[in-house]
Amino acid sequence: MTNRKTDAGNYFEDFTVGQELVHTSPRTVTEGDAALYTALYGARFAPTSGATTAEALGYDRQPMDSLLVFHVVFGKTVPEVSLNAVANLGYAAGTFQAPVYAGDTLSARSEVIGVKANRDGRTGVVYVHSVGRNQRDEVVLDYVRWVMVRKRDEASPAPETVVPELPKAVPADQLTVPFGEGSFDTTLSGSPHLWDDYEPGERIDHVDAMTIEEAEHMLATRLYHNTAKVHFNQHVEQHGRFGRRIVYGGHVISIARALSFNGLANAVSIAAINGGSHTNPTFAGDTVYAWSEVLDKLEVPGRTDVGALRVRTVATKDRACADFPYKGEDGKHLPEVVLDFDYTVLVPRR
Amino acid sequence: MTNRKTDAGNYFEDFTVGQELVHTSPRTVTEGDAALYTALYGARFAPTSGATTAEALGYDRQPMDSLLVFHVVFGKTVPEVSLNAVANLGYAAGTFQAPVYAGDTLSARSEVIGVKANRDGRTGVVYVHSVGRNQRDEVVLDYVRWVMVRKRDEASPAPETVVPELPKAVPADQLTVPFGEGSFDTTLSGSPHLWDDYEPGERIDHVDAMTIEEAEHMLATRLYHNTAKVHFNQHVEQHGRFGRRIVYGGHVISIARALSFNGLANAVSIAAINGGSHTNPTFAGDTVYAWSEVLDKLEVPGRTDVGALRVRTVATKDRACADFPYKGEDGKHLPEVVLDFDYTVLVPRR
Amino acid sequence: MTNRKTDAGNYFEDFTVGQELVHTSPRTVTEGDAALYTALYGARFAPTSGATTAEALGYDRQPMDSLLVFHVVFGKTVPEVSLNAVANLGYAAGTFQAPVYAGDTLSARSEVIGVKANRDGRTGVVYVHSVGRNQRDEVVLDYVRWVMVRKRDEASPAPETVVPELPKAVPADQLTVPFGEGSFDTTLSGSPHLWDDYEPGERIDHVDAMTIEEAEHMLATRLYHNTAKVHFNQHVEQHGRFGRRIVYGGHVISIARALSFNGLANAVSIAAINGGSHTNPTFAGDTVYAWSEVLDKLEVPGRTDVGALRVRTVATKDRACADFPYKGEDGKHLPEVVLDFDYTVLVPRR
Repeated sequence: MTNRKTDAGNYFEDFTVGQELVHTSPRTVTEGDAALYTALYGARFAPTSGATTAEALGYDRQPMDSLLVFHVVFGKTVPEVSLNAVANLGYAAGTFQAPVYAGDTLSARSEVIGVKANRDGRTGVVYVHSVGRNQRDEVVLDYVRWVMVRKRDEASPAPETVVPELPKAVPADQLTVPFGEGSFDTTLSGSPHLWDDYEPGERIDHVDAMTIEEAEHMLATRLYHNTAKVHFNQHVEQHGRFGRRIVYGGHVISIARALSFNGLANAVSIAAINGGSHTNPTFAGDTVYAWSEVLDKLEVPGRTDVGALRVRTVATKDRACADFPYKGEDGKHLPEVVLDFDYTVLVPRR
Repeated sequence: MTNRKTDAGNYFEDFTVGQELVHTSPRTVTEGDAALYTALYGARFAPTSGATTAEALGYDRQPMDSLLVFHVVFGKTVPEVSLNAVANLGYAAGTFQAPVYAGDTLSARSEVIGVKANRDGRTGVVYVHSVGRNQRDEVVLDYVRWVMVRKRDEASPAPETVVPELPKAVPADQLTVPFGEGSFDTTLSGSPHLWDDYEPGERIDHVDAMTIEEAEHMLATRLYHNTAKVHFNQHVEQHGRFGRRIVYGGHVISIARALSFNGLANAVSIAAINGGSHTNPTFAGDTVYAWSEVLDKLEVPGRTDVGALRVRTVATKDRACADFPYKGEDGKHLPEVVLDFDYTVLVPRR
Repeated sequence: MTNRKTDAGNYFEDFTVGQELVHTSPRTVTEGDAALYTALYGARFAPTSGATTAEALGYDRQPMDSLLVFHVVFGKTVPEVSLNAVANLGYAAGTFQAPVYAGDTLSARSEVIGVKANRDGRTGVVYVHSVGRNQRDEVVLDYVRWVMVRKRDEASPAPETVVPELPKAVPADQLTVPFGEGSFDTTLSGSPHLWDDYEPGERIDHVDAMTIEEAEHMLATRLYHNTAKVHFNQHVEQHGRFGRRIVYGGHVISIARALSFNGLANAVSIAAINGGSHTNPTFAGDTVYAWSEVLDKLEVPGRTDVGALRVRTVATKDRACADFPYKGEDGKHLPEVVLDFDYTVLVPRR
């Protein structure tokens, strides 16, 4: 009766620092994936909307959305990293490198770079450094994430704690601009505001909002080959912590990014993920709003046509963001805040 | 706290006759969009279903569905034209010109051709002439629509009224046939009935029906880059006029067109939009039926292989169309009628 | 008032043994269809996930999923075969032959090979042999199915009964391997278990599960050009047998196949459909689980790199499959069992 051929995923005890994980099912991304990404989020950023604007900006061809690349690489890591995860705790040191075009095949490998048993004896935290590559072995995405994973056997001994030191933010000299020096037409891009016009501390309510449906987040999550069970099985989840399927956190990131077009239209590409946490769960029926704060303004070495903005985008559920909801007096995220995402975008300069 | 970088859209006062609007985010349409269009509506018209039948008919390649082109061009116009619209009032003088193929990039510009303040002092009607072009600057779609738009400031003075004169229907000599002279095989097209077999006054109940889901109309509307808020935000709409998100009217047009296959299977392409109104709102959960009446039968100058039919397709919600429901004794559309669409299709001849 | 131009589909009296049916609307399958297929089911089998693994295995290019081919060919047959069907009773002798690639145009023809009036006087069983071909006239899929179809007129006389003899399973010498001799990397495929590791009688609980949404099964069914009304019209179905739209049985086959990855990851392609029945209806809201039994292990003539497994995959609704639910003491399928599918997969050998 034992399903010896079934993959039960790794438990906390299965991870050791230095271990390499080869992720399965390399995935070719196509114009079909790009169209679905548009249907799921409606993002209208210039280079991912049109080939003509992408090529004018200096791309070889119309690129895939950075976050679609993130989700596909992330999805690849789920079977070996987070099938038995309780929570996806954080991201750091994420850099988007070679641009991804339709027809590229993405594969991923991860190295375990930290483990830390929790005091409850039932779970532990695992840190992985994951690298996504295209079919030419060029790095397309390099990032660290850490997840809380269940132990198979609560009696198993705690490993030696290793917690990697991680940068607060990706420095400017590690940012890749995935396009050459071209031209950028603000009459076509949706906003006159360029890099020069943003200042650290500036906050933007993105105004628009999007209600999530079950079919949408499941279509998205399957598209990314993300197999985490909590997103798909209502028969089990009806008896779970929330009584409902949980929306993949990356789906909320993509909604927030799409909403951010209204105020950050010229943030043509994401260059880095500095950090991020899914501060509360999101469910079908929730309406997601977002606001952003410019955290930093960076010159990109060697480029005068484009600069970088470090941005925090906060997404909420069922609460408009005109008053920039974030944390309570206790320093904790408000219950309506579902995402606190710290990333770096590229914005053309004057 | 003001979101100086957010686009609030144009209000009635922002429109002046002669003004040109450059619409943002040119959009490359792909085989991915075409597949989604099939999944959303299930249309089976010969040239958009198969490359072999399209090429036999005289297309260079398998074309994009005329209505997908319409939705993409329409979507482009929303941010500048109808973000603050109360209602989409009508269409006229729409002509589909160059065929659109996978890989084409569509952009749009509009000229304001009419403004008329409403007596209520809170809204006005704006007429725009919109032109969609491909990357070679060829016109793919040219049409007029008028919308009721909110005023920003109710105290602002009414502009001089300009109401453009619009044709009741596009004349035959302004129709473009987007394919060369080829061959058409009715054993493969789904119906033996050709142009010769239809007569003005003839009415067809399309029999089939389609229930709309929230996920479907939102996927469609985002795919078209249509950003009108009423389609997406249940958190606000629950307190709105209808308590629900409103389905994009164009989604209903596409459902009605797909249903019309059963009775008008050989209407291989839409050549013109003569007029149309969304007579009642449609919501998720509604089941859409449709019937059509042949309004006119037109020879296409220079072509003996193909003719045109001017057709009115009426769509209803939750009411079968065997008795051709349309208007009540008061001359108003019945409450179940959601669409009254007057357009011209191309049909191969004997 | 009669809709003379509407296709009402064939009734039992319309079928005669030997009759050939030409199915309409040849359909070009694209990368867009493949992306939607991934979004709908999340299948991660190596050759359909990535071009690199497909080409290494010996395919010319990344192939379309066998079941996507099945659904498209099946969908083509619906208007002429099963528009007035009460039930889809069975499949036999299905062989997948030439691989299908993005850009191929699929068309279908069927021959009626059996008819049998039912004693109730209102329905009969029709057996059709359907063949799907690509634009080069190569056979891509050849199969038999039988359906219970309504009579138009209950008084019409019963035809002479003809029931074709059908094989219990497709023999090994009729299997086509759609790829040349290449290499297969189990570190990338998701499982170390090859053909050599499976034995007849072995049963595998696929563990994972998927809850179905209305939007999903309707998107899928329209994508396949399947026009059967029971899947789409809630306005009618609310008063029907089940009060709900019925999920297309093929949607459940594809869910079960995607779930079977966990335990049968190296079953890279389906070569044959030996039989299958949709034992109970499936509805939106149902959560589908699956388990499989290896029925037979076949050498493929002329190939030492790949073998075949005849597999029965059983899908259930709202019931986990750890105890392999199948039939009751009365020999009938349990009410939770929705699919009993007998097919042959190709698995690389050591």
